Amino acid sequence: MLIDGKRMCGVWIETDGWSVGIIDQTKLPHAVSALRLATLADVAYAISSMQTRGAPVIGAVAAYGLCLALRVDPSDAALAHAYATLVATRPTAVNLKWGLDEIVAAVRNQPRGERVAAAYARAAAICREDIANNEAIGRHGLAVIERIAAAKAAGARINVLTHCNAGWLATVDWGTATAPIYKAHLKGLPVHVWVDETRPRNQGASLTAWELGHQGVPHAVIADNTGGHLMQHGLVDLVITGADRVTAQGDVCNKIGTYLKALAAQDNGVPFYAAMPSSTIDFALGDGLVDIPIEQRGPEEVATMTGRTADGRIETVTVVPDGSPVANYAFDVTPARLVTGLITERGVIAATRKSLAASFPERAQQ
Amino acid sequence: MLIDGKRMCGVWIETDGWSVGIIDQTKLPHAVSALRLATLADVAYAISSMQTRGAPVIGAVAAYGLCLALRVDPSDAALAHAYATLVATRPTAVNLKWGLDEIVAAVRNQPRGERVAAAYARAAAICREDIANNEAIGRHGLAVIERIAAAKAAGARINVLTHCNAGWLATVDWGTATAPIYKAHLKGLPVHVWVDETRPRNQGASLTAWELGHQGVPHAVIADNTGGHLMQHGLVDLVITGADRVTAQGDVCNKIGTYLKALAAQDNGVPFYAAMPSSTIDFALGDGLVDIPIEQRGPEEVATMTGRTADGRIETVTVVPDGSPVANYAFDVTPARLVTGLITERGVIAATRKSLAASFPERAQQ
Repeated sequence: MLIDGKRMCGVWIETDGWSVGIIDQTKLPHAVSALRLATLADVAYAISSMQTRGAPVIGAVAAYGLCLALRVDPSDAALAHAYATLVATRPTAVNLKWGLDEIVAAVRNQPRGERVAAAYARAAAICREDIANNEAIGRHGLAVIERIAAAKAAGARINVLTHCNAGWLATVDWGTATAPIYKAHLKGLPVHVWVDETRPRNQGASLTAWELGHQGVPHAVIADNTGGHLMQHGLVDLVITGADRVTAQGDVCNKIGTYLKALAAQDNGVPFYAAMPSSTIDFALGDGLVDIPIEQRGPEEVATMTGRTADGRIETVTVVPDGSPVANYAFDVTPARLVTGLITERGVIAATRKSLAASFPERAQQ
Repeated sequence: MLIDGKRMCGVWIETDGWSVGIIDQTKLPHAVSALRLATLADVAYAISSMQTRGAPVIGAVAAYGLCLALRVDPSDAALAHAYATLVATRPTAVNLKWGLDEIVAAVRNQPRGERVAAAYARAAAICREDIANNEAIGRHGLAVIERIAAAKAAGARINVLTHCNAGWLATVDWGTATAPIYKAHLKGLPVHVWVDETRPRNQGASLTAWELGHQGVPHAVIADNTGGHLMQHGLVDLVITGADRVTAQGDVCNKIGTYLKALAAQDNGVPFYAAMPSSTIDFALGDGLVDIPIEQRGPEEVATMTGRTADGRIETVTVVPDGSPVANYAFDVTPARLVTGLITERGVIAATRKSLAASFPERAQQ
């Protein structure tokens, strides 16, 4: 997608043909800073420090991390060491391990002299597959938006509410929740996005709003408290969020606060969609409220805020009283009963065990 | 209530016997700073700049503002000028006008030489009445908490979730939503409070958490996104919020985001209460979603955050991208169907037209 009118991706190969480029997400939205990753250590640090974040993109970046390690030493021992280093950077991200496993499978039976080329080829394919999945999600989601637009007055604004960042920064390109929005905007539909700030880490305000602004998509940042009021007053036509994990019965685990928006959507007859590649669906899980452990993160994410001062410095300020405890739950689970549909690369699927199994028979039978 | 173990109120008369003391709420939670208001201009600035905020307390402070004006000039013209100055400071706060009207009524038929004493007497009475109302709200709310405690294992933590600041800082003493919590804590019940941060102005994190900490009430600050998840997992026993306006049919207008918590409470069988003096009930209004205009405030409240840096400076930082629009709705309306009860000075009242009329027959017939 676009930054200052220039085409960019979540990860790319530099002009030297082998080193890896990413956008430093920790500097956004106040500075656009590209990072060149040239070593295994560079990649491990970029993922663990969340310079790059978002399940799909870190799968691709980790795959390139193995490529960089194999350039230095294509032995089995070096591969095992690099795998162990990278898989530990974000232990809960399922795509990270998947990306590493794909590279290992691609090089395992190759002679050492051909491993580097095989690894780069598979990593590039992972990126292409991610883009293709997101484009498919975009097409299927666009059809949803077009149906909603058709039911409104011609030219009337179509208001989409989203939560957190499931945008192109979190993927190789297009994003998941944002792909239908970008497709609709590119097609000339008058979409407008309500961007939940998404405390505590503010990924909506700092990443999604930044993406939409550079793409020219009309939007407004709102406090997370606001979506219900907007829905009560007919100011939201649909909700689209991403998902961190979806269970076999269609429960959606996503950024904390998603459940509250799904409740408000149901109370006001607003359709609620979650968008994700099918790799996000975990057919081993049933009841999301029981089966998905919710990560608790450090208190500093709630207790502080980082931003830019009037004179341009980046400062972190404490916003809670000294001595006040903080609790920081990272995700919540939206029960399938509140989900209008799951937008996947295979189409929009009802959030039910039966529909999911019918759409992904090869995985549901595992 | 207590600050560093010392008894404090939301407003007081200084030891000189006539000037007015308040806590500068704009400095909290990082500094406790008392302000002495000695002139009409001091009071007008304190209210308009939100050094003092909260409907009940600004009614009392405004009443004292007329007292200060009358000390300088007890004429009808001076009174009218002072009234006009103060009523314009926060045009939407109903208690402000009420406090001013009470003083005017108290002095109108008094000889000029007795007006100052009559005004101070009425202002002091307003403060006593506010405290008495809040203590009554506290007693009735305590009974609710005791019933919930009785249904739990002996000694089990009673988790109350609250939103925004309806604490003693917003009143003369006790607060509204917090009065039952303080009463329960003083009685030795093991209450624990989940404090919604309450973006965009952070009154939960900066005021409610600060109050609770000084009172020794166990609590934790949470992002506004968190309450639904806590309720899904049985970690909230009841919700108590304040209210900015309540309609004759029991709809509750309160800080933006209250509606989302009420939805989550209903979805999880958690009782949802709003606490308010009956002066907050507007019997002229019916359907809150139709009849209550929702104030939109400046974008800077969403776009920025103010807090303390690691080295102790107070800084304001921008947290949205340059050029991203912001929308800032200040309140929302929770429909009566989601409200378990209204905790007033006359008891806990069902949020229905019939119950409200039966409890306040003298007002419902107006």
